[in-house]
Amino acid sequence: MNEPLILDENRFFDSDPAIRRIARDLYQGVKDLPIVSPHGHVDPKLFSQNRPFPDPAELILIPDHYIFRMLYSQGIKLESLGIPTIDGTPVATDHRRIWQIFAENYYLFAGTPTGVWLNHELSVIFGIGEKLNGDSAMRIYDMLSEKLLSPEFLPRALFERMNIEVLTTTDGAADTLAEHQAMRDSGWKGRVLPAFRPDAVTNLANPGWQKAIEELGAICGFEIDSYARFITALEQRRAFFKQMGALSTDQGVESPWTQELSPVEAEKIFQLARKGQVGKPEADRFTAHMIMEMARMSIEDGLVMQLHPGALRNHNQAIYHRFGPDKGCDIPIQTEYTRNLQPLLNKYGNDPRLSLVVFTLDETSYARELAPLAGHYPAMKLGPSWWFHDSIEGMTRFRQQVTETAGFYNTTGFVDDTRAFPSIPARHDLARRIDANFLAGLVARHIIDLSDARRVSRALAYELVKQTYKL
Amino acid sequence: MNEPLILDENRFFDSDPAIRRIARDLYQGVKDLPIVSPHGHVDPKLFSQNRPFPDPAELILIPDHYIFRMLYSQGIKLESLGIPTIDGTPVATDHRRIWQIFAENYYLFAGTPTGVWLNHELSVIFGIGEKLNGDSAMRIYDMLSEKLLSPEFLPRALFERMNIEVLTTTDGAADTLAEHQAMRDSGWKGRVLPAFRPDAVTNLANPGWQKAIEELGAICGFEIDSYARFITALEQRRAFFKQMGALSTDQGVESPWTQELSPVEAEKIFQLARKGQVGKPEADRFTAHMIMEMARMSIEDGLVMQLHPGALRNHNQAIYHRFGPDKGCDIPIQTEYTRNLQPLLNKYGNDPRLSLVVFTLDETSYARELAPLAGHYPAMKLGPSWWFHDSIEGMTRFRQQVTETAGFYNTTGFVDDTRAFPSIPARHDLARRIDANFLAGLVARHIIDLSDARRVSRALAYELVKQTYKL
Amino acid sequence: MNEPLILDENRFFDSDPAIRRIARDLYQGVKDLPIVSPHGHVDPKLFSQNRPFPDPAELILIPDHYIFRMLYSQGIKLESLGIPTIDGTPVATDHRRIWQIFAENYYLFAGTPTGVWLNHELSVIFGIGEKLNGDSAMRIYDMLSEKLLSPEFLPRALFERMNIEVLTTTDGAADTLAEHQAMRDSGWKGRVLPAFRPDAVTNLANPGWQKAIEELGAICGFEIDSYARFITALEQRRAFFKQMGALSTDQGVESPWTQELSPVEAEKIFQLARKGQVGKPEADRFTAHMIMEMARMSIEDGLVMQLHPGALRNHNQAIYHRFGPDKGCDIPIQTEYTRNLQPLLNKYGNDPRLSLVVFTLDETSYARELAPLAGHYPAMKLGPSWWFHDSIEGMTRFRQQVTETAGFYNTTGFVDDTRAFPSIPARHDLARRIDANFLAGLVARHIIDLSDARRVSRALAYELVKQTYKL
Repeated sequence: MNEPLILDENRFFDSDPAIRRIARDLYQGVKDLPIVSPHGHVDPKLFSQNRPFPDPAELILIPDHYIFRMLYSQGIKLESLGIPTIDGTPVATDHRRIWQIFAENYYLFAGTPTGVWLNHELSVIFGIGEKLNGDSAMRIYDMLSEKLLSPEFLPRALFERMNIEVLTTTDGAADTLAEHQAMRDSGWKGRVLPAFRPDAVTNLANPGWQKAIEELGAICGFEIDSYARFITALEQRRAFFKQMGALSTDQGVESPWTQELSPVEAEKIFQLARKGQVGKPEADRFTAHMIMEMARMSIEDGLVMQLHPGALRNHNQAIYHRFGPDKGCDIPIQTEYTRNLQPLLNKYGNDPRLSLVVFTLDETSYARELAPLAGHYPAMKLGPSWWFHDSIEGMTRFRQQVTETAGFYNTTGFVDDTRAFPSIPARHDLARRIDANFLAGLVARHIIDLSDARRVSRALAYELVKQTYKL
Repeated sequence: MNEPLILDENRFFDSDPAIRRIARDLYQGVKDLPIVSPHGHVDPKLFSQNRPFPDPAELILIPDHYIFRMLYSQGIKLESLGIPTIDGTPVATDHRRIWQIFAENYYLFAGTPTGVWLNHELSVIFGIGEKLNGDSAMRIYDMLSEKLLSPEFLPRALFERMNIEVLTTTDGAADTLAEHQAMRDSGWKGRVLPAFRPDAVTNLANPGWQKAIEELGAICGFEIDSYARFITALEQRRAFFKQMGALSTDQGVESPWTQELSPVEAEKIFQLARKGQVGKPEADRFTAHMIMEMARMSIEDGLVMQLHPGALRNHNQAIYHRFGPDKGCDIPIQTEYTRNLQPLLNKYGNDPRLSLVVFTLDETSYARELAPLAGHYPAMKLGPSWWFHDSIEGMTRFRQQVTETAGFYNTTGFVDDTRAFPSIPARHDLARRIDANFLAGLVARHIIDLSDARRVSRALAYELVKQTYKL
Repeated sequence: MNEPLILDENRFFDSDPAIRRIARDLYQGVKDLPIVSPHGHVDPKLFSQNRPFPDPAELILIPDHYIFRMLYSQGIKLESLGIPTIDGTPVATDHRRIWQIFAENYYLFAGTPTGVWLNHELSVIFGIGEKLNGDSAMRIYDMLSEKLLSPEFLPRALFERMNIEVLTTTDGAADTLAEHQAMRDSGWKGRVLPAFRPDAVTNLANPGWQKAIEELGAICGFEIDSYARFITALEQRRAFFKQMGALSTDQGVESPWTQELSPVEAEKIFQLARKGQVGKPEADRFTAHMIMEMARMSIEDGLVMQLHPGALRNHNQAIYHRFGPDKGCDIPIQTEYTRNLQPLLNKYGNDPRLSLVVFTLDETSYARELAPLAGHYPAMKLGPSWWFHDSIEGMTRFRQQVTETAGFYNTTGFVDDTRAFPSIPARHDLARRIDANFLAGLVARHIIDLSDARRVSRALAYELVKQTYKL
């Protein structure tokens, strides 16, 4: 017999009884609120097609770089885990074997949010009652496989069962949003919205930039042969996205540096890029300028503006060349906000029409830069702890380092940012528990009283995110 | 009926009973010690004139950028809060209406030190028994207004009731210290001391530098037309400040970079400044040099030297141009100490005559740079968590990150650094509670014993600050 | 009668009973495991000669810059503590008097790891029952002196009593390892291993570089007049060290910057160094290259590679010139890993033959850079909290900031890195307690269960360090 998998009802709460009692009370008040997921990377095809998930490895492991990077770090080849290659290298195809490897190494996830989320998925979504390990691997594989064939485990059924009020995808500037259209046409009531992410065309250093610009021109119906047309194309696509229900845009940038170019400079750099002659400094200046431009457009069309800086993408070139991007080798770098955002915030930060949500991978900026900025500029809100910091300790540090300067109401509430659809309830449940626990700590120390805590608790779990994202 | 405002006697202590019991015990031993406030920005006119505070908005909100920046961050215009403009833009003058806006948005301060201090002020200083919100706003306004007219709420009476042993103001190099003289002449026993802050004349990039130099020359009685005379003027003013009771100097600088210039270089840059031709690099080099010079002078005249680096002032230019400086838009920047202070510490850091108190807005420097420096150089002491970090979590992080390397005795004890006079007891009470709680955590984990904790507790609350500032 | 010195059996555990109970349980399971010390600075002469320690001051204070830097920071001259000078300045020789000064100022260590370790040493190793202070100083001095003369307090006897399985020293590239040979020849069973640290010859900016290269040539038996011969010499010495039992190498560098030079460039810089004409930029490039080379060699010969970056050595030049290096004036600097290690990790980080252990003095890199890197690259492991951060709060921050991204199994377990031999058991006991307490916190919050915690606890206390260092 294997060890039981039990989710304690007090999990993640402080063990001090005074705090735990209050945390539980606050959590009870928010745990059943609908899930609002205003930014993430779930594939809209899941819901337009509504086909069964193929098998446990395909559902849980193969698309989730949070999982396979940890296995890789311990010397397990990605090929042996069935991660698809782009260079033709063959990979393992026996998904039972892949699952077995995963299960045997599942102990590596002890103390990580991935471990916590997976336990939640297995237990709550799939009703698994034993811990995953080498011994239980095949039993659990079989149980999961069977469930995945039943109608209750189709994507739309899961979406509804998960009590998701809104789910946002992330879509390129040239995306037709055909999957979103298909969802609408199907008459399905689930609210899945696109979001506009133009990185492929705004980042001139992107090796596929010329192809991306061609695609953008194709969908716009005119050749993008000038900076002015480029801007027109973006504005046109934003309008289309908005019409398709989009509420927000997003930019993933190495640095949050902002600086406006003159039209002449912008045109000059744009033409260099067209000729494939743009260097890193020019590309960086163009990105700095395009962050400014996106703010201007947001003020004009009302889309919420998100900024995700600070990841050095594809750090491990060998993995990148064999497997492509998003394979667990993006590594954070130090990120400066005070000086970098000054041009943007000076031009647009006092404008109430702008809603700018800033994220960070550099926790040193929380108390030093981001909380003071969000605690002053009306246009700026601070997104929650992100990616590596979307975790129990990470969320706790976020609140500890942000709240005293920015308060609660200059933060946005939780954003899951996941591509792992079945982990969404686990992530929101975790966030609600941690926020409840943080507030309970304030109440137990008489920093705020219980009635204030209840008000804030509801704001963090549900209201702030709807307000920030204009839902 | 409104919600009651209650200050729990165990507030801010850990809820774990083992820690709370010890924290309370330690706090009892220090809570009634006199307040020593060796650095701050209270206006000396309060005490030379001893006039009643005009009204609650004028007392609490309008002078305190900690408060109105938070309201501004949520879209409330500073004009609507009666913050005076320098560009002639009219502002709200109905202070009851201003107070009402403040009260309706008071929930924004949940979990912030400002909220905690205000509750203390309202409850302890003014005897208010209900929470401030939109409903109670006018009742509380009326109660406060009435109290402000009574003799016990005159500045000097409050000063005495607050049990303040010493209060230090911050005064420019050209200040006549007339208010301090008037206090002396009045025979009042309250000890309010000036401190010498020459930023307006040492920072050549200050737009008002030429005017400031003229004023300095005027008060010195000679034209400051050379670097040598500039130094003479500073030395002369320091001597005057010292004679008027000053114990310390202060410099607010963007970077703590120190580097000595040759007399020829110093003269050259000084003459450029006189012609209005100094650039940012020269101004920075001059500041770096003037930090060295201030250390030299401190060794000669015995004044304690304070250094406050790391704020990028007036980040929001629109606010700066309309409202002037100190309006909640100074934003911290990353600050390096190890290399920047090396020239200063190599020249003067081994000299027992120097007492250099260093502050930071960059918490990453606590454990990495400042604790190792203060834990080695005899001349250097570490000031407490400052400004944005003068808070429950901020003070806790300070002790957690500094103590293991620098111990307690290389820190200075609490410095409130406030311009909000009625918040002083709240701030000191909070600091004493947090230090008691931190020590209690050490005792509860058997890291130190109770008798050591008592000794340290008294040092942190009272003795160290007197020792550091040579009181 | 003096105050008793009591080590509580629950020391360093959280005072919350739920956590403390589990922490104690986990600690019981690991407290008697043998000590594995894979990196440190204990003098091998202690064990080859096995002579009695001369006296308490000589044993505890004089060699330990953790101790005397704190005394120095409070204005106590190093000369008065008997710290030997290199410039001929006379120093105090009365060790009873030195011990008295130390004892009178022992209160400075309240809340520091040094205080905690010393109490452990006095109580557990020497059976002292009263607290050290001015009153007890001479009594304790006499008791210690007496014990040091008895056979049980000879170095080898202590080594055995301490239950040390392996102790590693740190040895220069030109070291004959004669002391290690003498130990082997003596037939003593204690396992004391050398480690290869070539900083003196790889750092071209070292003022003694030419002498160091000559010594290296002398021991290799050929003149090192070219870069190629330099590499041959290093490879030869590594082979010798390995034959003498070495398992690892170490490099102490200011920055972890890595970059490969072409053979021509390497030769050119090497020849500049031979002529004494190398500048800081060339020396830095050479160091960056030598880190790459050391990784290549490690892949070839299997030695574990350690990297210790981020200390600005000898910050206080006055102390350095009078007393030499390692006198408590090395100060950490900000350290970047993501970009700096990219060349190394791209070339060698996917190679399972490499075991690279990275340390840091910059805690901001834990969650932002090092955990993501160690949580991805198979060759890289993260060393424990180091030097200033080898402390209760430091270790706790390490686990809190590293675990959620890198898990436990990409860390190495505890490394004491000490030159204070009698503090070794105190340091390992502390580390085991803190890890037990951290795990207990996870169990109490139901993040992991007790059986997982037991497994991890044993790994952290014993197994991981053996695995990482190939023991």
